[in-house]
Order: sequence, then C-alpha cells, then structure tokens
Amino acid sequence: MATQGQVITCKAAVAYEPNKPLVIEDVQVAPPQVGEVRIKILFTALCHTDAYTWSGKDPEGLFPCILGHEAAGVVESVGEGVTEVQPGDHVIPCYQAECRECKFCKSGKTNLCGKVRSATGVGVMMNDRKSRFSVNGKPIYHFMGTSTFSQYTVVHDVSVAKIDPKAPLEKVCLLGCGVPTGLGAVWNTAKVEPGSNVAIFGLGTVGLAVAEGAKTAGATRIIGIDIDSKKYETAKKFGVNEFVNPKDHQKPIQEVIVDLTDGGVDYSFECIGNVSVMRAALECCHKGWGTSVIVGVAASGQEISTRPFQLVTGRVWKGTAFGGFKSRTQVPWLVEKYMNKEIKVDEYITHSMTLGEINKAFDLLHDGTCLRCVLSTSD
Amino acid sequence: MATQGQVITCKAAVAYEPNKPLVIEDVQVAPPQVGEVRIKILFTALCHTDAYTWSGKDPEGLFPCILGHEAAGVVESVGEGVTEVQPGDHVIPCYQAECRECKFCKSGKTNLCGKVRSATGVGVMMNDRKSRFSVNGKPIYHFMGTSTFSQYTVVHDVSVAKIDPKAPLEKVCLLGCGVPTGLGAVWNTAKVEPGSNVAIFGLGTVGLAVAEGAKTAGATRIIGIDIDSKKYETAKKFGVNEFVNPKDHQKPIQEVIVDLTDGGVDYSFECIGNVSVMRAALECCHKGWGTSVIVGVAASGQEISTRPFQLVTGRVWKGTAFGGFKSRTQVPWLVEKYMNKEIKVDEYITHSMTLGEINKAFDLLHDGTCLRCVLSTSD
Repeated sequence: MATQGQVITCKAAVAYEPNKPLVIEDVQVAPPQVGEVRIKILFTALCHTDAYTWSGKDPEGLFPCILGHEAAGVVESVGEGVTEVQPGDHVIPCYQAECRECKFCKSGKTNLCGKVRSATGVGVMMNDRKSRFSVNGKPIYHFMGTSTFSQYTVVHDVSVAKIDPKAPLEKVCLLGCGVPTGLGAVWNTAKVEPGSNVAIFGLGTVGLAVAEGAKTAGATRIIGIDIDSKKYETAKKFGVNEFVNPKDHQKPIQEVIVDLTDGGVDYSFECIGNVSVMRAALECCHKGWGTSVIVGVAASGQEISTRPFQLVTGRVWKGTAFGGFKSRTQVPWLVEKYMNKEIKVDEYITHSMTLGEINKAFDLLHDGTCLRCVLSTSD
Repeated sequence: MATQGQVITCKAAVAYEPNKPLVIEDVQVAPPQVGEVRIKILFTALCHTDAYTWSGKDPEGLFPCILGHEAAGVVESVGEGVTEVQPGDHVIPCYQAECRECKFCKSGKTNLCGKVRSATGVGVMMNDRKSRFSVNGKPIYHFMGTSTFSQYTVVHDVSVAKIDPKAPLEKVCLLGCGVPTGLGAVWNTAKVEPGSNVAIFGLGTVGLAVAEGAKTAGATRIIGIDIDSKKYETAKKFGVNEFVNPKDHQKPIQEVIVDLTDGGVDYSFECIGNVSVMRAALECCHKGWGTSVIVGVAASGQEISTRPFQLVTGRVWKGTAFGGFKSRTQVPWLVEKYMNKEIKVDEYITHSMTLGEINKAFDLLHDGTCLRCVLSTSD
C-alpha cells in the first residue's frame, strides 16, 4: 500500500481533558513497529468504559488520549515479525490480548494475558514505550491498547483477531467488547446449566447478552432486574422472562428475589458496576450453591462487602473480564456463530452515526433507549 | 436396655450464662421421640465454636444450654421410626445433618441439609419443638443439634453417622468437626490439584487439616501463615513446607505472599475467623485463577470486603461448612480412612481430660500448644 511505512494523517476524536467534549482532529499515526499492526478502523461502537475514563473518574485515565475499544477494520500494514495478519485482513482489535506464550495464556485457566499489559496500562506501545499517535508533534496516549475512535490505530499483534472477511464490520464490531462479555460470563465463567434460575441486574447491552447466553444455556427462569421498567419489552427478545423493578418493592431486592425463587437463584450477574448491587446479586443466590458473577466495572476505590456467612453457606463470588473468552482464538469463532445466526448482534445496535457525531453519541449512552451506537469513521 | 423409654439422669456441663464457668450438673435426659436417637457420649472434644457461643458473642446463642459438637458414643435407644441405627451402634453425632430427602440433599451440589435446621437453630427438637434436657424440671437448650458435653444426649436421626465399631472412639470423635472441615475444604470445596501452591492462614487444628489435605492432593508449596512462629515445627508434620509470620514483615501479608509466589497462590484458606485475614487470603491469590476458601467462622455482624477488581481479574471467593462433606455418608468413610492410616487423627490430640475438668480444657483452647483436648465423660 502507498501508506505503508509512512505516517498517516487522519481524523480521530481526541479526549484532551476529562469531561470536556471530544475534539475531532487531524492526528498523525506513525507506522507499526516490531510486533505491531496498523488498522484502518471502519466502525466503532461506544461502551460505558469509554465514558468512565472520559469522565475523569478513572484514576488510571491519561489525557490527552484517543478512547474507543469496540470496533472493526482492515489491516493497513504490519510491523516486522508480524506473521498472523497481513494488509487487507479483516480484524477486530482486542483490548484483552492473547499472546499464547505467557504464564496466563499457558495456564489453561484464564483468558487474561500478561504480555503487553505493562504498556497498554499506561497508554503506550511495548516496543519503545511511546505512543504512535501525535497532533502537531505532541503525543496522544493510547487507550486499552485499542484507541478505536480514530480512522487509523496501531495495536500489538497479540491484540488483533482476524475474522471472516464476509462478516459485516458495521455489525461485528460489537464482538470487541459488550456482547462477548455477557455471553462469556454465562458460558465460561458461571457455566450455567439447563434448568437453572438466573437473575440479571442491569439490562443494558451486557445484561441482555447475559440473558441471551442464559437462554442458549437452557436456563428456565431468566429474571431481569432494572430500575427502568421500560427495558422489559426489549429484554424479552433476548430471553428475559420475568422482570423485577426494585423501585416497586419496600424490601431489599435480594430478599425480593429470594422470595420469588424459593430460596434464591442458581446464578446471578451484576451488569451495572454498582458495588451495592454486587452485594445484592450475591445475596439473592441460593444457599448451598448459588454463584454470583461480577460483570460490571465499579468506580475506582469502591469496595464490595458481605457477611462471610454468605460464602460459608455455599455461595460463590466470581468476576469476569471479556467473558473469559480468549480473544484472538474465540472472537473469530463468535463471528462465525453470528454468521450462522446462532448469536444476536444486529439487535443491540439502536443507533448509527459518524465519528464526527461522537459527542452526541456519548450523550445517548445515558439514554435508556440506547443499547449500542455504531459510528462510521468514513468522512 | 433397662434405661430405654426412661428419663436418664446423668452428668452434663451446663452453660447457665455467657462467660461464666460451666457447671457439672445432674441433668435429666428424656427418651428419644419419633425420629430421634439417644446417645451415650463417651468422648467429646472442644472446638472454638463452643467457646464462641459460650463467650456470649454469638447473638443466636441460647442459655442455659449444653454445648459440644465434636464427639463419639454408643446408641442407647432410638425413637419410633428410626431404622438406620439401633442400640449398641457406635456413632458420631453430626451438627451438619443429612436427610437425603430435602432440596439441599437432593441437589447434588451441597452438603448442607435443611431438614432439622429450624429446630437445631433454636436449641430444640423438631418433633415437639422442646428440649430433651432439663435440670429439676427446668429445660436446658440443645446446641448445634448435638450437645455432646453430656454423658447422654438426644439428636435427630438425620444427624447420626454410624461408624465401624472397631474404631477407637477417643480418637475418631475428632471426625465430628475440625479435621473433616480442613480436609474437605481442600478436597471438596477448593479441589486442589497436584502441583498447586497453597497458603493457609492460621495453623490450629483446622489449618493443619487443610495442610494435610493439600499434601495428599499433591500440592507442591504449602505455606503456613501464623503470628506464632512456634507453630511451624508441628505444622511441618502435617505438610506445611514454608512458613511466614506476618509480624516479621512491614508489608501487608498479601503482598508478602504474592512476592514469594511470583504473583500469588493457586489456593488460599482462612482458618481463623478474622475478616481482615479473609481479605488478605483472597488478595494473595494469583490473578486469573486463584481461589480463596473461607473456613473460619467470623464473629457475628462482621463483614468481608475487597475491591471488585480482585474478582473481575479472575479470583474466586468461596466458603465451606464441614468441609463440604455429607455427614452421615462420609463421616464413616473418613473413619475408614483413619483406620487404614490414610488420614491423621491421633496427632491432633494434645490433651486428654475428663468432663469434670472442662473449664480447664476451655482455658487450654487459647493456649498455642493445644490443638485438641479430648474429654472422657465417664465419672
């Protein structure tokens, strides 16, 4: 390609300061170095984690930065030593890397990967501990190792999933975060069995993906819990078959669920990021075996708590990151499942806009009617 | 037997008030009713749970009562409908019942049993919601459905494990609580695999049983943690092969263990009942897969807490009651394992006394040199 080895100047949404509108800028994107891949991002969705860091509440948030981590695109060029993808490949950038070599990847027990964490955690690339983004020579931090709110981005090769080129990128970009997180929380982390009762706290994209995962796993009762009763209608399409609004009850929500289910649910999922709700989710589980999975991301510094008796009497407290999926290995498999109509994706997309409208898209995130807004990055 | 159907007057240690010395009294023990078994207790050990209730810190503690729950004896008589044991059978009373009929027993997922809980939790028998113990006509509460600090006790038939009559009762009485709790925490709850690294917080009887369980499960590094360094010598005999005294370190103990084990242990066990230690035990687990099991019983009202990130990054928080063993089914199996020299029991018995010396025995519980004190109930 004509751009290979060259700096590319393109549009990106730069977050200069917490809580200030993103600025669409001409940014310079340096060529990929050893073990790096430069991707032309075609579609990117917005997720609450972007909004959290943007808000300034994330103490590890670095500014100025380019946010975004749920996207799809095409490889523009690759750095030295990159063998698993080549220019033209359709890919999904993965904030959760998979190197297949580190202690974590080889453990067979987790999808977490330690290979590039020390760089992605501080907004730079491993090779030279620097950013590939700049505006007029001033570096702009990477975010989550993906930075997809840009027409071009540079990621580590261990963070790129090569997918079926026939897959529609404007849809499968969602398989970069929220949908796999919900499905995997059920399939990989909780391992829900047929006939189970399930409680889902929070019916946003992740909660709905949990519902879909629970339905395909054969759960019988799938109880959605949300303070917005309007969400039940949509949730039904994803498998939720009972609904509880905590505002309709005097009693703590865990007691309501315990009463409703003759002692509690077999599995519960917290998909909000609220530490009080995490406690309720644990305590609404059945004594003896109920398992609660924390899926939501709580604000920094907040803590969960409960009486140890809850665990001594058989409840299990777990969490999940990217649904326990091995990213490079399993994102392509999820794309196949979508192509075979075995999992939903289109149904989560409620809004489509352009990168230039990103501030409007962020406003929508807080609107109960928005699940996912997909931005086209083309001019 | 001559006593069958009669009230038996015998010696028992009665706890009249919290924190006041137990009184050896002549108590009247009524005959067993439908589904009940009267047992002549021959040997009983003391456990910290007895001391906890005796101290008055247990808000569910009822006085006056007869404490004790780790014992062995011989069936004296049985009530109507009791088919699985008969007079003369050697038995271990089980504070954790196993009815094989309730939702819990039939779940295949837990050793908890719901059959008699509503009575044993309030110090009475199911049949008439009354006590079988009295002193001069005044009822004395049962404790944990066992009340073994008495020459005779009455228990529900679902709370009696029939054991090999060749087993020495003065030893196997320990299989009524502490030793199975530790072994089962490893074998049933954590399911430790060969080659694992294990951290054990607290090297009392339960902690040592965890060590023994870990050793037989093939754990490689078995790290004992205790504020009394003298305990390491004894702990070595049970499998502990490294020792850390938190007092020897400036850093929080979880950081010490993480440094020592290149990222944390695969499994940790809290065998003290201290909520701060429970947090340390979770946080010293390896990211991605480390599992922490709460074995100790915390004081009422205390809570555990941590950052949810600990769970989201793959740690699992669990607890165990009676080590997950099904009491009536598995206590006899544990007795067989002891008879075949596959598990230790004798090694936990550091002191032997008589029921009349019980107050002295309670003092010993707080002495670091005492693991288990076994009381003979004969006059």
